[in-house]
Amino acid sequence: MQAIDHGERSIRRCAFNTEKSLDKARIAIVGLGLMGGSLAKACQQRRLAAQVVGIARRSETVRQAEANGIIDWGTTDLEAGVAEADIIVLSTPVRTILSQINDLCHLTLTPCLVLDMGSTKRDVVQAMQHLPAHVQAIGTHPMCGKETRGLEAADATLYEGATWILVPLERTTTASLDLARQLVAGVGARPLVLDAERHDRLVATTSHLPYALAVTLLLTAGQVSEEDALVWQLAASGFRDTSRVAGSDVTMMLDILLTNRDAVYTMLERASANLQQLIDQLANGDESALRALLAAAQALRLKGNN
Amino acid sequence: MQAIDHGERSIRRCAFNTEKSLDKARIAIVGLGLMGGSLAKACQQRRLAAQVVGIARRSETVRQAEANGIIDWGTTDLEAGVAEADIIVLSTPVRTILSQINDLCHLTLTPCLVLDMGSTKRDVVQAMQHLPAHVQAIGTHPMCGKETRGLEAADATLYEGATWILVPLERTTTASLDLARQLVAGVGARPLVLDAERHDRLVATTSHLPYALAVTLLLTAGQVSEEDALVWQLAASGFRDTSRVAGSDVTMMLDILLTNRDAVYTMLERASANLQQLIDQLANGDESALRALLAAAQALRLKGNN
Repeated sequence: MQAIDHGERSIRRCAFNTEKSLDKARIAIVGLGLMGGSLAKACQQRRLAAQVVGIARRSETVRQAEANGIIDWGTTDLEAGVAEADIIVLSTPVRTILSQINDLCHLTLTPCLVLDMGSTKRDVVQAMQHLPAHVQAIGTHPMCGKETRGLEAADATLYEGATWILVPLERTTTASLDLARQLVAGVGARPLVLDAERHDRLVATTSHLPYALAVTLLLTAGQVSEEDALVWQLAASGFRDTSRVAGSDVTMMLDILLTNRDAVYTMLERASANLQQLIDQLANGDESALRALLAAAQALRLKGNN
Repeated sequence: MQAIDHGERSIRRCAFNTEKSLDKARIAIVGLGLMGGSLAKACQQRRLAAQVVGIARRSETVRQAEANGIIDWGTTDLEAGVAEADIIVLSTPVRTILSQINDLCHLTLTPCLVLDMGSTKRDVVQAMQHLPAHVQAIGTHPMCGKETRGLEAADATLYEGATWILVPLERTTTASLDLARQLVAGVGARPLVLDAERHDRLVATTSHLPYALAVTLLLTAGQVSEEDALVWQLAASGFRDTSRVAGSDVTMMLDILLTNRDAVYTMLERASANLQQLIDQLANGDESALRALLAAAQALRLKGNN
């Protein structure tokens, strides 16, 4: 698959890239949840593309998105939805993305650019390598989100100011990368090119670890609540903030953890060791060591916010 | 100390409680940081008391609070500040509160009600038992806060809607408890009476555990950042929310952890076991068990928010 006829490829690339600029493109967004719905909304409000097509599993979602003007038209049929699209954006949980890339491999596609918005990238860009040579592909990951899900939560401003990772394939052309950058910048985000391994390792720290700690917090509070139900009444803003991301969609998060298992495992082991260090110093009553840890965390918090 | 002359006590109680209602009281707030400053501000804006006195360590803070009208007058001298106060509110880190209660034990106080706003209660109410018999005392803890510190962050609306725990001593009179309730309700909070042990066990879960997990997150991210500094650029809202409370004042948090060591230790051990369970199921790739944990956490998140 990766051995492609270079001559044919450059012709097709021209056909794709010179005839269509973003504002003349048809964008097909597969999955109209929070992320896909927000992208569709942002594209419409900012008039970024000629046409926004929505593909969703449920016809009710399609009707709702059409009625709200979030998409120009929609369908529950992947093949019909992506036909003649210039840009296809897969905005579903990671393992659904993997199976949809496989579906796309078996469809007759016109030259186009396939993007995904999944939260892990290694498996996705690996799958993208099997797309036909005339189809360009880039793995992407907008670094933003909310714990609310579904089209109802879609927000045209969701991507404003966010870092949006782009993971090109070896065979991705400069023109395709530029088109992806235009789309990302068009919705107000800041494109950042990374390789898949580095991306996955970094998000294990910045995104999957916070999720796992939030889950840990809630499971622990849940156990305590069986002994004393008052625990929920005493949960104030600190508890709510720390546990917020555990409200994320379970299927989405399960796909993320399982497609980034090695990096997440390593990160959780490191966090577990750090938690154990806190426990040990608390048990020892080692005040100066404990103060040093808390002060280091506070300093990192300020750093992380700048 | 607890064996008091009942006759004398009831006379003094009358002298204290019948002559002064909240609106005629002089409130002396010791510590003009976020919590004390917010209380002073709320008292002034809502005209709850006859006079608000501020006592701070630094004369600059006193001047600033006077200049902003947050207090009627202030001083850096504890004795001068609390003299003739009807209500004394200690709003400093827990171990400073303990030493200030000791200071109050050695001052000649007129009949008054001593409250504190510390985040742990066992040691505080124990110390309060040594106050002279004509001084009433209640340990309190408003369940709210911000990770920003200092008088600059003071906010008259901070307490609105918050649960505010009241931990009466055995010798606390109904009239004193009523007065504390009036103050708490007066700034918009909801008073809730609890015993110290239960309070400390519950806040170990709802407040000290989230803090420890936020510290764990930042220490882990800090280690990763030494390998790849890009980690901070990829930290999005989920990371920021989960780590927010680690920005809390270090001395305040150190005092809290050390004065609630047993309950915090127990809670961190439970959390550590729950984190290990997540790690194990990730390592095993036990998808259905992992899904069940994530779904349980998500359900608890919704419960905790209601």
